[in-house]
Amino acid sequence: MNVKEYMQQLGQAARKASRLLARADANQKNAALHAIADAIVREQDALLAANRQDLDAARQAGLDDAMLDRLTLNAKGVAAMADGLRQIAALPDPVGEIDEMSYRPSGIQLGKMRVPLGVVGIIYEARPNVTADAAGLCLKSGNATILRGGSEAFHSNQAIAACVHEGLAAAGLPAEAVQVLATTDRAAVGELIAMPEYVDVIVPRGGKGLIARISAEARVPVIKHLDGNCHVYIDDTANPDKAFNIAINAKTHRYGTCNTMETLLVHSAFAEFMLPRLASAYWEKGVELRGCERTRAILGEQVKAATDEDWATEYLAPVLAVKVVKDMDEAIEHINHWGSHHTDAIVTEDYGRSRRFLREVDSASVMVNASTRFADGFEYGLGAEIGISTDKIHARGPVGLNGLTSQKWIVLGDGQVRS
Amino acid sequence: MNVKEYMQQLGQAARKASRLLARADANQKNAALHAIADAIVREQDALLAANRQDLDAARQAGLDDAMLDRLTLNAKGVAAMADGLRQIAALPDPVGEIDEMSYRPSGIQLGKMRVPLGVVGIIYEARPNVTADAAGLCLKSGNATILRGGSEAFHSNQAIAACVHEGLAAAGLPAEAVQVLATTDRAAVGELIAMPEYVDVIVPRGGKGLIARISAEARVPVIKHLDGNCHVYIDDTANPDKAFNIAINAKTHRYGTCNTMETLLVHSAFAEFMLPRLASAYWEKGVELRGCERTRAILGEQVKAATDEDWATEYLAPVLAVKVVKDMDEAIEHINHWGSHHTDAIVTEDYGRSRRFLREVDSASVMVNASTRFADGFEYGLGAEIGISTDKIHARGPVGLNGLTSQKWIVLGDGQVRS
Repeated sequence: MNVKEYMQQLGQAARKASRLLARADANQKNAALHAIADAIVREQDALLAANRQDLDAARQAGLDDAMLDRLTLNAKGVAAMADGLRQIAALPDPVGEIDEMSYRPSGIQLGKMRVPLGVVGIIYEARPNVTADAAGLCLKSGNATILRGGSEAFHSNQAIAACVHEGLAAAGLPAEAVQVLATTDRAAVGELIAMPEYVDVIVPRGGKGLIARISAEARVPVIKHLDGNCHVYIDDTANPDKAFNIAINAKTHRYGTCNTMETLLVHSAFAEFMLPRLASAYWEKGVELRGCERTRAILGEQVKAATDEDWATEYLAPVLAVKVVKDMDEAIEHINHWGSHHTDAIVTEDYGRSRRFLREVDSASVMVNASTRFADGFEYGLGAEIGISTDKIHARGPVGLNGLTSQKWIVLGDGQVRS
Repeated sequence: MNVKEYMQQLGQAARKASRLLARADANQKNAALHAIADAIVREQDALLAANRQDLDAARQAGLDDAMLDRLTLNAKGVAAMADGLRQIAALPDPVGEIDEMSYRPSGIQLGKMRVPLGVVGIIYEARPNVTADAAGLCLKSGNATILRGGSEAFHSNQAIAACVHEGLAAAGLPAEAVQVLATTDRAAVGELIAMPEYVDVIVPRGGKGLIARISAEARVPVIKHLDGNCHVYIDDTANPDKAFNIAINAKTHRYGTCNTMETLLVHSAFAEFMLPRLASAYWEKGVELRGCERTRAILGEQVKAATDEDWATEYLAPVLAVKVVKDMDEAIEHINHWGSHHTDAIVTEDYGRSRRFLREVDSASVMVNASTRFADGFEYGLGAEIGISTDKIHARGPVGLNGLTSQKWIVLGDGQVRS
């Protein structure tokens, strides 16, 4: 069987399973999640052995330390996967939720019912834990899923898939509800993203290159996260302590996350007061600063001159671009122009400016007096996230269970006809 | 200037205008809508003259009567365009609506704010009134729009565009908020659907061929409506009068609309009782029936044998496919398999079956004891609709102002940082 035939077969099976899953009740789905978690805990040795096989091959192939780190599964990681599934089981079931029921003048009663999307294709890199997370979120939201993890994690993913299938069977759900590709052929990705008859949405997770390529070639909708070029703007009406704490936390709490601040904007009337204090703290933590002319005039030659490329860059590293702006208008302009519409924050005590910033900044998350690091599915109470979307259509920002569902209209009548 | 350059220029201007429009308040947008309506009423003679120019050319080109009918603008049509705009002005402004604000354990207050999508591209056929409708809906929802109407309506659309621009100027909004293509070059469509940097969503309206082609080629999300193959299923627990009225209304109220029933499904235990009465009424109205074997056994040879193609067809004509099914499960199976996921209804007095049908039928609108003809933006209280979506992502069913918006997360803090 060639790749195309194989993927078509997977797609057909997923579509069929999705119908059964859509009508599965919360108890059945939760039973499956718990059974999968139990199997993962029980099969820890098998999972670690499969992972060692992947790690050996990866080391021989000369993968770098960061990739090996992402690929590695240890006892703690196995326990975390199981816990994650149990947390998903504890979340409310979104499927079947009915909202906004109201009577129309015709006498019909109209509302909306939350329903699964159908079949979700997820393409990710070599992090084996994503296999369990993604399977759990799709299962709970009533979607069938086709998972294509990085080929480096092939054996780990197959071992996790065995646990998933055991759990599905225990709960009386079809094995095809979660299918993990049994091939590492790259052509399979091309097929997966071009089967609108079998796949309703694609969620790519990984590097920018992968995501851009998938978006360009997909024949089905894509929920994606391209870039996290986040900003904090310190207004001249800011409380200095809040400004200091937020600016430090947003940059230095973690360097490699998508909600980390990459450019700091400071109101010109506040720059001489705020920047030296901030700079010392950043330098103490080893953060390199790259600034506009005004910033360099205040902080000195130690600050490298920032170029346009700096305003556009998601460093994911201890590097921060700093720009002094004339006022909030210039800050908003800068953010909307150079940012990635992910997460941006203002620090201000001014009522009117907080309202304008919230309305005019065109990002998935817009914050007042809070660190950009809060933009996260767990912090937002979604329980878990399948990703953070920088798109505007369908799902924006952290995507949890609801982002994997849709709403259909329901009409309850009593024999009404249209006149 | 070639078409690509021209479209890029339009796109850039639309993106810029979209920022101004996003922050325009309800009063300003409503003032523009009223000013456009006033201009349309005042310029009636100019509009009708432009339309005559289009009609003359269309007649010379040998367009058929149905197309000429759609293209024709008369005094009543002009008044209806102006009324439509005033009705849009009377709708609540969705932009800036804040929902679900609640405190998280970290102390941040989290909610969602409704925001425009940005730039909406609309591609439609030769119905001049769509130009005013689409401009009005996009304007009210705070989106800039690029309109590409059928080339047969070129002069009509330009005349309407002049009124739109007059109204925008009167309200102090940029002319680039609504741009009507000044070219009939078909290559412009190809450019419009492939500028993700300037266009956030494409709404194609028109024939299936057009929509399928645009969906296949678009590089931006598409809100589309492909097919309206709607069903009514009469259960053996139905009230016969409701069943009769709904089945007649859903088919014969209007033949050419997307929410018209195209296949009638009847429970086997109810078929001998219901079908003869229904058939007489359909025949009296000149509706041709095409049935399964069982239907033909009950109604006679007068009923043509239905083929698989009949189950899949949106007739948009006085033709109805009829199938006797064993039970509700077979009906749901048939609808999910052959239908177009648009609008489907059950007639039943049974509590459990109504709940199962609502949950298990995978369509944008699912109804109990009501005519499928209710699936419509006006009947649903959306005020107006830009189209009916058969997609699951983002907008499903009738798409009104909310379907042209998105929600961003907003976070109100008091200096919170992540620990």
